[in-house]
Amino acid sequence: MPELRQNIATKEWVIIASERAKRPNAYIEPKPLALTEGRNAYEVGCPFCPGNEELDLEVERHPSNGAWRTRIVRNKYPALATEGVLTRSFDGVQRSITGIGYHEVIVEHPHHNTTLALMEVEDIYVVFDTFQRRGWEVCKDQRVEQIVYFKNHGERAGASLPHTHSQLVGLPIVPSDIRRRIEEARRFFDDTGCCVYCTMLSEELERGERLIAVNDHFAAFNLYAASSPFHSWIVPRQHRSSFRNAQTEELHALAEIVRDLLRRLYFGLNDPAYNLIVRSSPVKEPESGYFHWYVTLVPRLSRSAGFELGSGVWINPSLPEACAEFLRTVEI
Amino acid sequence: MPELRQNIATKEWVIIASERAKRPNAYIEPKPLALTEGRNAYEVGCPFCPGNEELDLEVERHPSNGAWRTRIVRNKYPALATEGVLTRSFDGVQRSITGIGYHEVIVEHPHHNTTLALMEVEDIYVVFDTFQRRGWEVCKDQRVEQIVYFKNHGERAGASLPHTHSQLVGLPIVPSDIRRRIEEARRFFDDTGCCVYCTMLSEELERGERLIAVNDHFAAFNLYAASSPFHSWIVPRQHRSSFRNAQTEELHALAEIVRDLLRRLYFGLNDPAYNLIVRSSPVKEPESGYFHWYVTLVPRLSRSAGFELGSGVWINPSLPEACAEFLRTVEI
Repeated sequence: MPELRQNIATKEWVIIASERAKRPNAYIEPKPLALTEGRNAYEVGCPFCPGNEELDLEVERHPSNGAWRTRIVRNKYPALATEGVLTRSFDGVQRSITGIGYHEVIVEHPHHNTTLALMEVEDIYVVFDTFQRRGWEVCKDQRVEQIVYFKNHGERAGASLPHTHSQLVGLPIVPSDIRRRIEEARRFFDDTGCCVYCTMLSEELERGERLIAVNDHFAAFNLYAASSPFHSWIVPRQHRSSFRNAQTEELHALAEIVRDLLRRLYFGLNDPAYNLIVRSSPVKEPESGYFHWYVTLVPRLSRSAGFELGSGVWINPSLPEACAEFLRTVEI
Repeated sequence: MPELRQNIATKEWVIIASERAKRPNAYIEPKPLALTEGRNAYEVGCPFCPGNEELDLEVERHPSNGAWRTRIVRNKYPALATEGVLTRSFDGVQRSITGIGYHEVIVEHPHHNTTLALMEVEDIYVVFDTFQRRGWEVCKDQRVEQIVYFKNHGERAGASLPHTHSQLVGLPIVPSDIRRRIEEARRFFDDTGCCVYCTMLSEELERGERLIAVNDHFAAFNLYAASSPFHSWIVPRQHRSSFRNAQTEELHALAEIVRDLLRRLYFGLNDPAYNLIVRSSPVKEPESGYFHWYVTLVPRLSRSAGFELGSGVWINPSLPEACAEFLRTVEI
């Protein structure tokens, strides 16, 4: 019998389609590991490799002297423009805002043939530290309302350049999708006095059946109402609303657990495409008792079609508990 | 300068990315028209071709005697089960409902080598009439709260069988995505006394710059806040909340305008993959002044990545006004 499950934080329902469910190992990619074979650490013509840097796009590098570990560059084809005046226009059904904001790329490592799953914990820490420091800079611009940090890994997840990188977008609005999550979190807090994310986290730690990895500061688990196979959250155990306020020891622990989870995917499923997103509170909202930042990981192993577009309900052809069990047993 | 545009019915923002925008003809598919060449009207082994029908899955055929024009069959791998008891379960963060509902396929034509764009108006009318009649049947089941009618055309849009078909899902919930649209429509009605869809329709008819086709009962236009290239709505000019209440002459006019729009895509862009969705009110809600059924068409010419997943904001690398102008000039 199929089952509808609700994510109590977002109120979104998914269908766990038992009739069409595949076993977790059915999602192993047929191709060989793309990054461990036949690639060099340096690629001629890659704008992210040392020596080829497009300096006119560079925002900063870290460290600023000597060999860099991470670089921030402006996106060559930005979705938003940083220069210009933020104006709103209302004309009947036409409601618009000038496309002011930030669209930047974080080059995560100088080597062309690596990716987060293969990097050292310390290197991944430097990536999150770069995210966080740049987040503090961007939010000084009063026009920015929301920062979205994300990574597209693999072509099916939207990556257009193979050299490992993430992106940061600073938006002049709080998207309605994020506003709705905040409203739901506030409603849960009104009803219970608790943060809905803290509640989910403590239940997942207690039940254990969907847990993938745990350390002093984070837990990673497959979602009870996962919208797709291996859809996971990495939730900080210390309640905070904004990623920007995470402490140094938390960023180290985040690097450790992200590496753990990504290695399980890399070796267990043969390097699937994925999106990784840091979800954090709007920049002008103070720390609150009800909103909680976290990281979401969406491997791109199934696809949306007319039903998902027409209903907002996802059909997940896998069982989250089986996916978690599979990932726990992968040798990393 | 890029621009953020808001859909006033859904409150969702999109980024019209002028820096990375392509001209409409950049979206022409490189492959030849898939369905006009090298295919026969009958395919051995296709379960939707006459003679190969899987009768154990058949729900009904139309007409019931002689050669059929459309058939309704149960999905072989249904996302929901019709037999069973609808029960809700609450266990901490785990909130679930048994997966009761309907998941059916409408075979749109006996021929294997056709598609809506190539069918006659009368044949497309029969498809919508089949949708509507089956909708009336399914909503007699008191467990059903929402019907989603949709079509996946082409592999990139999620179609797994090439023989032209649509699907109908009867859900035991009203998805939160649909509830939010209804709440926004009600809010607009409270503020203005008007249906937001009627308002959008009348403005699009007046402005004309995004119109693609118009007849006595419908208008088809590219959305002002289109989330992707050529994203369009087909809106009935007579206000009604439910597709099930559309009149016979409206279904004829719908067949005519859907054919018109799909032929523009087929010949103008070389048969792109698309999803087509009939959006209608929840089955237990009566006709209201504020909600309006319509058809949405989403060609799959760009893809979502981490930014869209993390923000709910889509980046559209095309200008809706230019897309409409392109489609208007296609010879059909």
